[in-house]
Amino acid sequence: MHVTDLIRRKRDGGELKRNEIEFLIQSYTRDDIPDYQMSAMLMAVLLRGMTRQELAALTETMLNSGQVLDFPELKAAKVDKHSTGGVGDKTSLVLAPVVAAGGLYVPMISGRGLGHTGGTLDKLESIPGFNVNLSVADFRRVLGECGASMIGQTAEIAPADKRIYALRDVTGTVESPYLICASIMSKKLAEGIDALVLDVKTGSGAFMKSEEDAIFLAELMVETGQRLGKRVVALITSMDQPLGRAVGNALEVAECIDVLDGKGPADLRELCLVLAAWMFLIGRRVATLEEGKRLAESLIASGKASEKFREMIGLQGGNAAVLDNPGLLPQAKYQVDIVSPSGGVVTAMMVEQIGTAGVLLGGGREKKEDAVDPAVGIIVHKKLGDTVAAGEALCTVHYNSAERLERARPLILQSYTIGTKTSAQARPLVGRVIGSETLGAAMS
Amino acid sequence: MHVTDLIRRKRDGGELKRNEIEFLIQSYTRDDIPDYQMSAMLMAVLLRGMTRQELAALTETMLNSGQVLDFPELKAAKVDKHSTGGVGDKTSLVLAPVVAAGGLYVPMISGRGLGHTGGTLDKLESIPGFNVNLSVADFRRVLGECGASMIGQTAEIAPADKRIYALRDVTGTVESPYLICASIMSKKLAEGIDALVLDVKTGSGAFMKSEEDAIFLAELMVETGQRLGKRVVALITSMDQPLGRAVGNALEVAECIDVLDGKGPADLRELCLVLAAWMFLIGRRVATLEEGKRLAESLIASGKASEKFREMIGLQGGNAAVLDNPGLLPQAKYQVDIVSPSGGVVTAMMVEQIGTAGVLLGGGREKKEDAVDPAVGIIVHKKLGDTVAAGEALCTVHYNSAERLERARPLILQSYTIGTKTSAQARPLVGRVIGSETLGAAMS
Repeated sequence: MHVTDLIRRKRDGGELKRNEIEFLIQSYTRDDIPDYQMSAMLMAVLLRGMTRQELAALTETMLNSGQVLDFPELKAAKVDKHSTGGVGDKTSLVLAPVVAAGGLYVPMISGRGLGHTGGTLDKLESIPGFNVNLSVADFRRVLGECGASMIGQTAEIAPADKRIYALRDVTGTVESPYLICASIMSKKLAEGIDALVLDVKTGSGAFMKSEEDAIFLAELMVETGQRLGKRVVALITSMDQPLGRAVGNALEVAECIDVLDGKGPADLRELCLVLAAWMFLIGRRVATLEEGKRLAESLIASGKASEKFREMIGLQGGNAAVLDNPGLLPQAKYQVDIVSPSGGVVTAMMVEQIGTAGVLLGGGREKKEDAVDPAVGIIVHKKLGDTVAAGEALCTVHYNSAERLERARPLILQSYTIGTKTSAQARPLVGRVIGSETLGAAMS
Repeated sequence: MHVTDLIRRKRDGGELKRNEIEFLIQSYTRDDIPDYQMSAMLMAVLLRGMTRQELAALTETMLNSGQVLDFPELKAAKVDKHSTGGVGDKTSLVLAPVVAAGGLYVPMISGRGLGHTGGTLDKLESIPGFNVNLSVADFRRVLGECGASMIGQTAEIAPADKRIYALRDVTGTVESPYLICASIMSKKLAEGIDALVLDVKTGSGAFMKSEEDAIFLAELMVETGQRLGKRVVALITSMDQPLGRAVGNALEVAECIDVLDGKGPADLRELCLVLAAWMFLIGRRVATLEEGKRLAESLIASGKASEKFREMIGLQGGNAAVLDNPGLLPQAKYQVDIVSPSGGVVTAMMVEQIGTAGVLLGGGREKKEDAVDPAVGIIVHKKLGDTVAAGEALCTVHYNSAERLERARPLILQSYTIGTKTSAQARPLVGRVIGSETLGAAMS
């Protein structure tokens, strides 16, 4: 099998066979194919696409390049949720305890902040002592004891994805929906789950700015997951404005604590309930979505979800007292309001800029090796459709460095469009659901 | 300037600016950009194409990556011919002496066999003692003394092309007409020529099988050359059958000696006359194509062209006695006829297979490091439209190894289609001419 022949076939729009894809990925992972051939192949894939058969074979080969977890000792369904990333997108920290409190298992392997978006691991690490670097044995133990565990990717999980992702990052081949799908699904399916809810973001704060692109990616991921024998559904959700009000690691943890206490911003609370309902449904804990939503609401109202979060934090070495006193979370030294230069209605937000402002404050990484400042961030007071007066605060910035503040400030200001429309219309938070029809058969 | 941004722009169909192309090529040539980024860029170029501005900038940057020859001491025009490669395509060995005998200078830097096609250097080296590895100083001296010199690419000429070509070869990015154009034209324009005739082959023995592809490449090369201030014209010529009768290094040299003696196959002789006429025309030695053709005929008839070849061979260390006694060229130990299994008319030839048969006999390289056997090859007796009886010889194979003969034999047999049509119609040897209109202005 000649690598160049395979590159040329894909380049010319042809299809690769399963064994050819296995050969490519396995050889590359053991350094038998050089980077320069793989990058040419990745560019050909980006520009020519893949068939669904090719994509399933690619995902499965990447999945099988490392350890695939399995939890035969756990009798209830193992369910996870994955988001394609947004700004203020913090639902994982609410969902894991809610769904575990409902009796399912949530073995969640998450990532760090990427570009303008935050990462679950960075948020968790703002809880003093919380250890996201558990061994697989400890992950299994915490999961068995409390029903949820949240860790980072280990070197043993999908090493082919790790290699390929690093190459994509420097060769302009990140944006292919096929490669994104294979990367996400190979890692998620290595978690040993039965079912997966995908939260595919679209809008100015998402990687997929257009809804069409988001739907296409969602369809690829759902079909690939289902081909590999999992129950998978995807929700297209709006990232036209930050989710909730908090953007920044510790600030977002505090907001999640609020939601688990039955408080918190309405949009964040609503999305958490909907996603939890879907997790309960495809985890076969409930028979209808409505029942799933009521279950999630009751677990929050009863304090059981919050108690579950306390249990998990404790088992992973964190200081669970933050639940009673969020003031124990890291606090920035300074706060300042960013005020509106004019009065009117918020008609649009460039959400990516708000995410980038959070990164510039120190809450994310400009370079891979940067440390993250857990305390800094932005509390968003004005969102789409809100009326604002000239001089009124749009946001409050929590910061530790005046120099960083000055880099972030113009991005935040420019991200707001203050118009004169009296009724700015935001699209619904939850849009289309992909895969529920095909799921019907799998569910029966 | 971030390489990844440039890759992404080209990937998305955007245009690169001249300074961006210079940055890419110069950085890559001095190892500041890794192979894996360049190969992703090359694949993006292959699939997205380039504008004519981008192509001119790429060609010029590659040209200027090394030494650009200049011959201010030579008062007549410097003219060259380049062929995109075919089977039995040996016109350079006739053209250089003819055009030099006509008073122009021919500084010809050629290549070796590539794939199924032969290479001028391999043919020249079948002349005992002939040295194609002259220094630039010796190249200049031979050119000045006899009007023509034929050498191989030196390390100093277009090193960027050498690096990029090696990468294209292993990344499935050879076939881009844009990259082919930049590669050919950067090397040819480094010869310090005023004018260039391109022989762009099309048909079953050419790299560009379709005439449409051949015309597109010809247009790119002509426009690029003209943008860089040279007089360039391209002839689309048929490679539906081998050119002449000889395929194989020493056999082809012998056939060229015949043509320079006023003999040889009619098609080879005709193409040499037409190409020489164009070289004389754009070299401003004659005013019309007809005059150029008559000049070439007279230089052959008078023996002056043959005398010029003798002079050049001598100056480059070769044994010019081969002109009087072609038996001094390397001779294969064995000859065998390949006979037709049936009677009829030759209605089609798969010329690439005949070229590959020549390679398998040892006349070309299967791997880069292979040595070439100068003596072996094929004399083609039957060509398109010829009548053949069952058992009559189609070709005579000159070989040194029975094992190699048996690998080549089926390819030769299969390459012939013997039909029943009484009047098989071959397309004209010389088809469209590209660039003569735009040349008008440059010529006046």
